Amino acid sequence: MNPTITAFKSSPDRGKGLARDMRVRWALEEVGQAYDVRLVTFAEMREPAHLALHPFGQIPTYEDGDLVLFESGAILFHIAERHAGLLPADANARARAVTWMFAALSTVEPPIVERSMATIVERDKSWYEERLPVLEGRVRDRLGQLSNRLGDADWLDGAFSAGDLMMVSVMQRLAGSGLVEEYPNLAAYIARAEARPAYRRAFDAQYAVFVAASGG
Amino acid sequence: MNPTITAFKSSPDRGKGLARDMRVRWALEEVGQAYDVRLVTFAEMREPAHLALHPFGQIPTYEDGDLVLFESGAILFHIAERHAGLLPADANARARAVTWMFAALSTVEPPIVERSMATIVERDKSWYEERLPVLEGRVRDRLGQLSNRLGDADWLDGAFSAGDLMMVSVMQRLAGSGLVEEYPNLAAYIARAEARPAYRRAFDAQYAVFVAASGG
Repeated sequence: MNPTITAFKSSPDRGKGLARDMRVRWALEEVGQAYDVRLVTFAEMREPAHLALHPFGQIPTYEDGDLVLFESGAILFHIAERHAGLLPADANARARAVTWMFAALSTVEPPIVERSMATIVERDKSWYEERLPVLEGRVRDRLGQLSNRLGDADWLDGAFSAGDLMMVSVMQRLAGSGLVEEYPNLAAYIARAEARPAYRRAFDAQYAVFVAASGG
Repeated sequence: MNPTITAFKSSPDRGKGLARDMRVRWALEEVGQAYDVRLVTFAEMREPAHLALHPFGQIPTYEDGDLVLFESGAILFHIAERHAGLLPADANARARAVTWMFAALSTVEPPIVERSMATIVERDKSWYEERLPVLEGRVRDRLGQLSNRLGDADWLDGAFSAGDLMMVSVMQRLAGSGLVEEYPNLAAYIARAEARPAYRRAFDAQYAVFVAASGG
C-alpha cells in the first residue's frame, strides 16, 4: 500500500506548485516512494471527515496504514526519517539539517506569507502603500541573512537535505516579487533545487491536477 | 560538560517567560538535563561571533561539544530525541507528537506573533482599529480549531509531549489579550502545563535573569 496524501482539487495558485502538497510530493520523489493523492475541495476541507485528519482544515495530510499526519514539516520529516536521501547519516549533520527545516518554517516563511497575504487581501486598503515596504523589509532581513550564510555553497549544510527542500519551498512564494533576485546566490540556489529530477516530477504531477481541474 | 544555551541579557518581555529560550529551558528541566546559559545583548546578537551560531541573529542557540543548533523547535526536538520524557516510544505516537510541534510553530504561532507585533508597532497607525479585529479573527480561527481537537483531554495526544510544550509556549504570547479565555479548555490546558514542576523551575530561572538585569 502506498501512502496517501491530500491536495487541493482546485489549487488557488493555478498549478504554480506553491501549495504545500508540493513539498511532500517532492520529498516522496526524492526518496523514490510512490504515493496516492486524494483531491479535496475547500468545502470538503471544512467537513468532519477531513478535520479528523487535519484539525486545522488544511492540506496536505499523510495517511500510511494506521498513521495519520498533517503539517508539511512533520510529513517531510517523517519521510526523511524513514528513507535514505533527505537526512545525513552523521548525527550532528542530521540535527543541523532538521534545524534548517525549522528555520525555513518558523523564521523565513512567516514574513513571506505575511507579505504574500497582504498583496492579496490588503491591496485595496488605504494603508497598503505604507505597509508593503515594511513587510518587504522584514522579508529582506531574512533573505539577506540566509544569503550571507549560504555564501557560494550549493546547499545550506553539505549535501542536499530536507532542510534545503523546505527552505527552497518557502522562498518560492516570492516568485514575481523581485525580492529573491536581489540575492543572486539565493536565486541560483532555488534554480539548482528546481533542476532536480525529483522536483520536476513532483511539479509535473501537481500541474497535471490543475490542467485536469481546468478542463484542459 | 553541560550544553550551553543563549538567552537575552535584557529580555523585552521583562521576565514574563515569553522569550524563546524559555521553551528550551523547560524542555531541559523536563528531561533533567543541567545546562549553562550565556546571556547576550541585542548588539552582541548582530556580531559575527553570534551570527556564526545563529545566522538570523536570534536566541536561543544550543551548543553541546561540536554541535551547534539554533531555532527553538530544532533544539527542543534534539533534546526530546536524546532523552526520555518528551516523545512517546511508539513510532506512530512519536510522529504525531512531532506533528504537534510543527503545528504549533507553523500554523498556530504565526497569527499570534502577527497580532502581537501589530499591537506593538502599529498601535499608533490610522489603520490599527480596522486591522486588529482581522488579526484577532485569524488567531480565533486557530484557537477554535485547536480547542475542538483538544476537547476534554489533558494533552493533545496521550501523555504530555514536546508537542504540548511547544503548543503551550506559542499560546502564552496571548496572555493579557483575553483571547485564550474564550476557549476554557485551552486556558485550562495552559494552566495544567504551567503547573508542571519543570515549567516552574524554567520560569524561575529566566525570571532570575530579569531580576539581575534590572538590578533587583
